Parts: sequence; C-alpha cells; structure tokens
Amino acid sequence: MGRRTGEPPISWLMKTALARPNLISLAAGFTDNPSLPVRETLAITREMLGDKDSGEAALQYGTTAGDAGLRRLSAELIRRQDQGAKDWRYSADRALITNGSQQLLYLLTECLCDPGDIVLVEDPTYFVYLGIAQSHGLNCRGVRMQPDGIDLEHLEEILVGLKRNGELRRLKMLYLVTYYQNPSGITSSLEKKRGALELLRRFEKHAGHRIYLLEDAAYRDLRFAGEGIPSALAVRKFADRVIYTSTFSKPFASGVRVGFGVLPEELLSVVLRLKGNHDFGSANFLQQIVARALISGHYDKHLLALRRTYRQKAEAMGAALDEHFPAEIQWAKPEGGLYFWARTPRSLTTGMQSRFFQAALAGGVLYVPGQLCYCDDPSRRKPNHEMRLSFGSASTERIVKGIERLGRVLRKHLN
Amino acid sequence: MGRRTGEPPISWLMKTALARPNLISLAAGFTDNPSLPVRETLAITREMLGDKDSGEAALQYGTTAGDAGLRRLSAELIRRQDQGAKDWRYSADRALITNGSQQLLYLLTECLCDPGDIVLVEDPTYFVYLGIAQSHGLNCRGVRMQPDGIDLEHLEEILVGLKRNGELRRLKMLYLVTYYQNPSGITSSLEKKRGALELLRRFEKHAGHRIYLLEDAAYRDLRFAGEGIPSALAVRKFADRVIYTSTFSKPFASGVRVGFGVLPEELLSVVLRLKGNHDFGSANFLQQIVARALISGHYDKHLLALRRTYRQKAEAMGAALDEHFPAEIQWAKPEGGLYFWARTPRSLTTGMQSRFFQAALAGGVLYVPGQLCYCDDPSRRKPNHEMRLSFGSASTERIVKGIERLGRVLRKHLN
Repeated sequence: MGRRTGEPPISWLMKTALARPNLISLAAGFTDNPSLPVRETLAITREMLGDKDSGEAALQYGTTAGDAGLRRLSAELIRRQDQGAKDWRYSADRALITNGSQQLLYLLTECLCDPGDIVLVEDPTYFVYLGIAQSHGLNCRGVRMQPDGIDLEHLEEILVGLKRNGELRRLKMLYLVTYYQNPSGITSSLEKKRGALELLRRFEKHAGHRIYLLEDAAYRDLRFAGEGIPSALAVRKFADRVIYTSTFSKPFASGVRVGFGVLPEELLSVVLRLKGNHDFGSANFLQQIVARALISGHYDKHLLALRRTYRQKAEAMGAALDEHFPAEIQWAKPEGGLYFWARTPRSLTTGMQSRFFQAALAGGVLYVPGQLCYCDDPSRRKPNHEMRLSFGSASTERIVKGIERLGRVLRKHLN
Repeated sequence: MGRRTGEPPISWLMKTALARPNLISLAAGFTDNPSLPVRETLAITREMLGDKDSGEAALQYGTTAGDAGLRRLSAELIRRQDQGAKDWRYSADRALITNGSQQLLYLLTECLCDPGDIVLVEDPTYFVYLGIAQSHGLNCRGVRMQPDGIDLEHLEEILVGLKRNGELRRLKMLYLVTYYQNPSGITSSLEKKRGALELLRRFEKHAGHRIYLLEDAAYRDLRFAGEGIPSALAVRKFADRVIYTSTFSKPFASGVRVGFGVLPEELLSVVLRLKGNHDFGSANFLQQIVARALISGHYDKHLLALRRTYRQKAEAMGAALDEHFPAEIQWAKPEGGLYFWARTPRSLTTGMQSRFFQAALAGGVLYVPGQLCYCDDPSRRKPNHEMRLSFGSASTERIVKGIERLGRVLRKHLN
C-alpha cells in the first residue's frame, strides 16, 4: 500500500502557493475565510460546555457509527433535500459519521475493492479520489461528461466493452460527484442518475455481484443558483444500490471536519468494522457542535450567508473571465460549489510541465491543471487543455486580479 | 480488505454493557467522566473563538501533517519526558498529528505491511491492534511478557526461528505498548527496549530491510506512581528505528481525538501521503484546542487532577481485589493507565464462551476476557484464564461493587 501511494501533485501546488505570498492561488479548494462561523461556533460551544452533563458528553468517546442524534439529523437533511418519503432510504440506521466525507470515500473503497478491480469515474473527476484509487491498486475508466452529467451512451459503451473482455466481474462501482462537481462545476440531472442506475443494474447479472453508484454530494449545500436536484436515492427502484456521501465541513466549517453518508446495509456493517480499526469513531466534540448547529438553526442561517458570499465571488470571477479571458477560452458559470472550469484550444496545453503553466506561475497566478483530474485510462489520451479556477478562498479583489493576470498570459500564449 | 475484517468481539461487549444499565462494566476503556476538562475547554474555546483571526484559523482546513505549533509541542513533550537532548530525534519535522493514535497505528501498518507479512506483538497486546493486523492479512507472533516488558530471550528465539524458516524477510516490526500496557498494566523498562532494538538490528541483515520498533505510548501521561521511564527514542544508537505514537485523547479529553507521533523520515513521507488519502489532515479545530491547552498550562493542571483521580480509583480497585478476590487469583497493581490484569488458575477459563464469563454476566459484571488480547500464534495455545479489569469509567462505588460481584462468582467457580 505504501509503495503504491504516490506523492499527490496537489501537495506541490499547495506548497508553492504557501511559499510565495504574492502569488494569487486560484488552485486551493479552501473555503472563504471571513465567512467562517466564528461567532456561531462560540455560541454553540458556550452552551454545550456551559452545562456539565452536555459538556462531559461532548468530551467523552462516542460510538464508531457516530452520534445517534447527528445520524438522524443527517439522514433527515438528505430526505428533506430530496423531498422524499419517510421510508427506509432515509433511515438513521443506514447513516454514519466520518472525518469529512473524504474518510468515507476511503472506507468505501477499502470495503468494496481489491487491487485490480475497476471503478468508473467521471472525466474529469475529483483528483483526491484518483489518489485513493491508485493507492488501492484500482483501474479507473473515465466516462465522458455532458452539461448535465455523464454521457450515458458512453457509460453503456464502456459496460459493453467490459462485458466483452470478461472484466465486468472486476467492476465495483461508478463514482459520481453530482453537485457543482469538483472540478468541472457540472451538476448531474436526476435523469442521468436514473439512467446510470438502470445501466448498472442491467449489467449486474454479468458481473455476478452488485455494482454500486457512489454519489459524492460534498458541494450540494453550496447552491447559489438554479433548482435543487434530488439525489440518486430519489430513484426508489434502485435506491438499494446507492451510496450517498456528503459533508458538513464545507457548508459549515472546514476546520470542523464532519462528513456523513447513508449506505446499503450490507456495506454499512463492513465499513463500520473498518472504521473501528481506523479510529473507532470520529471526535464526539465536533459531532456535538454540528448537531447543535443543525438543531439551533445556526447551520441554516450560516448557509444563507455563505451562499450569498459564494454567489458574489462566482459573479466576480465570471465578470472577470468575461473581461479578461480571450474569446477562444470556453467556460460556464456554475450554480454552486467553488469552481469554474475553463478550456483552452487544444493547441494550448495547461499541464504542470507546460510553458503556459510556468508562465502563469511567473506571472503570479496558480490554477489546478485539468490534466490532474483525469484518471489513467488506456482508451484515451489525458486531456491537457483545461484549468480549475477556484473562487473559494481568495478575496474578490484577488480573484479579479488573478483572472486578469491569467488572461494576460493566455493572450500571450494564444498568438 | 472488507472481507478480511471481522466483527470485533469488543463491539459485542460494549453493546451488552449499554443494553443492561444494571450491569457494572469493568470492560470499557472509557475515561473517567466527572474529571473531563469541561471548564478548561470552555475557557480555551472562548479565547480561541473570541478573536476573529484565531477563530477563523481554527475553523479553516489545516495541513495533512497537522498544525506546525502542535507538532512542535508534541515533539517537545516527548523530549522533556525523555529528558533528551535537543537533537534530530525530537525534531518537529518528524512529528505528525492524527485522529487519535489509533489512526496512526492504522496508517503505519498500511505503510509498512503487505498481506502475509509478520508483526511481533506482546502476549497479551492491545486487541484493537490485532483487529488492524487481521484486517491487513498479517501474521502475528506473540512475545512472552515479564513484569518489566517482553522476554528478550523469547524474542531472540522467535527471531532465530523466523531466520531458520526463511520468514525474516516478512518481518516488518515489533509492536510494544510500553507504558501501563493495555491490557496487562505492565510498563517496559528502558533496558528491555534497548535489548529489543539491539536484537532487531542484529537480524536486519538477514531480513534485508529495516525492522522497526513501534512504541505505542498511549498511556504514558497517565502515570500515578513509580518513576517516569524514557521512551525507546532515548536509545540514541537505534533511535532511527523507533516509531513513537501517543495521544492527547486519554490524558485530556477522549471526545477531542488528537493523536501524535514521531517517525523515521522514510516512513513519515509515505504515512503523510496515505493520510492525504484518508482525510488530508485532522480537524484543525481540535488541534488548536489541544495546542492551547498545552501552552496555557491547562493540560498540565488537568493532568495532575486526573492522575489523582486514577490513583484513587486504582487504589479502590486494588483494595476491593484484596478483600473480595480469592487468594488463587493473581494480580498486580499498575503504576498508571486504566487497567488491572487478573489471572485465574488454568482450570478456570474466562473466555466469552466460558461458564465463568456467563455467570459473571448473570451476576451483573462485565470484564474483557484475556483471550481476546492474544494474537493467533500457531506456536502456542491462546491463554484463556485472564481478565482485564478497567477502573477508567466506572465510579469508585461501582468499581468496588463490581469486584465484589466478580469475587462472588469466582469463589463459586473455583470450588
């Protein structure tokens, strides 16, 4: 395991950003600093620790699955967002609490996959998940994206190919980041999720086992435009194949790492055993803070303010892109999350080794090269002409300045 | 991985204890509830969140290795306890912060071991570590214990045997719980640690790689009698083979899960990559609380009170054992930690299936059967006549009552 686990390129990016304070980083996935809920968390901890009983409860060990109240609140949050019926799909018994949703992605991969197994991912996808997959010796295949989620025809083509090659028995799941995707900003429609679940189920009999849809809804709460879209759990017929993961870290406070998920029962029991070995339960103190934020309304109120902030920052970045980026660069405004995704003409490569990336760095601006967000898939070359631009942590002023700098470098390299 | 990971027997014990409130559990490794630092943590969070800058810093993501200040404080804590020189061994660059020391044990095992590898453990050892080892497909061998740590002659015998069978190349480390061991209460002398390091080094050339000593010092701060003993890092000649892990969870607050360790450089880089995949860093909020507790003196003051509490509880348990346990039962008073270890005559088995265990349960008292703390080692039968008795979470009154109940059942079963 240790040998398979490479140094993630993103560490280099982060170190570079920290070492050069004049550099404007549009690379980091950090959240907006000034909008962190300092006063709210102070009020919550005061109340929680002001009482001896609740104070002691928060400072004592919890259980491996997590605080019963928070599990209930988490499952209920998903149900409300899905406008779903109060049935088994949103039962607190299926929920667990983890150290951010990242840990849950790790545990699920450990639980489901052996080295040599196959996981389907979006093209592009969340690059840290690619690190998890590589570390576990998995083979990933990329499914092309459309503006409303994966290309179902391409998914079917891949499944047919796997069946033909006898590799379907190695396929364990399809991993989708369904809301304001990191990195592309794309949101999956419910139709796409339904279509994916239907296809996976159709091929199960050839695989000889269940093939799950892992829905990573980490950015779901960070919606600042458009309609809310139900999760894959809303597709009731196939909901027993859906693994849903999300987090309170980004919508509330990234220093309070609390993730959650609802899982099919047969996976939950195994994931809990693994979590027992990892840490026998996430810090109770953080769980109690989040539970109190949800119950008191601090969470919802904070979220309203946060959405306003991100809407403004996204608008500022969009306006700057309009003004400073050459017309040859394609990009679309996301309806939530933290990222714009910009595409250059294929002649202009954006990878870490490219002249353009180096020129941007010299010009004082850092982005995440799109290439890092594509899995190693032997059936295609890795696209190398995209950039992830984050409006999460930089101030509006620095966002605009960063895009201006990047626009200047772009114009120089397009000619 | 999922398939290899069994349901830990301890879950059953914990569920049983929770379901029967009249049952006195001397099984749980929970800490003493009334002594949890509620007021201290309130004061710390007030100060931390009362200031906008430090509040935002605590609520933002940190780095994968952990807060630089806390890494420094952790390394310095070990150095002071070791009365060591300010040299490379206690450098903050070698330190990292994890979700309790449990996560660090997991990461190290992932980093060092492949399925089929061998880890040497104490006989008996920390049973959750046995779960981690089993989950990773490792083979464990048990080294016999003496009152001051492992039996070095037995260790040598095992190493010679592994060499003879060509298995030394699969041996990756020796795992020792060196202070007030869970479960036996035994503390390893510095001489035993030095002897173990010398032996491991001697056999390295036959193994073809480094063989590490993993020193789990989780209970080190919970000393209430006897002298402080330096860690294996104090054996300067072999300190580059020492992995040191410990935690602030038990000495400060188990709901604030913060573990730490210092690692040889070649392991640290790999462990950090793995941690990047697990969760890209422990919750910054908890780290800031612990760092402030250490700096402000809250930590040391709390520890003094905590040690007094545990000393009293250990004395109460010792006195109750003196009074209520038949003379045939052997036990020794620990100088720290949370556990007594009691040994029955071999004719009286104590395992979960035993008539004695069932009778104790019916009599309203629960202990951890010693058998659960022994690895599967083909060279010996698992001892089945011991009990781990915790004075951590039960009140003094319930400790005394629990021992009285257990004594009654013992007398019945000894005749």
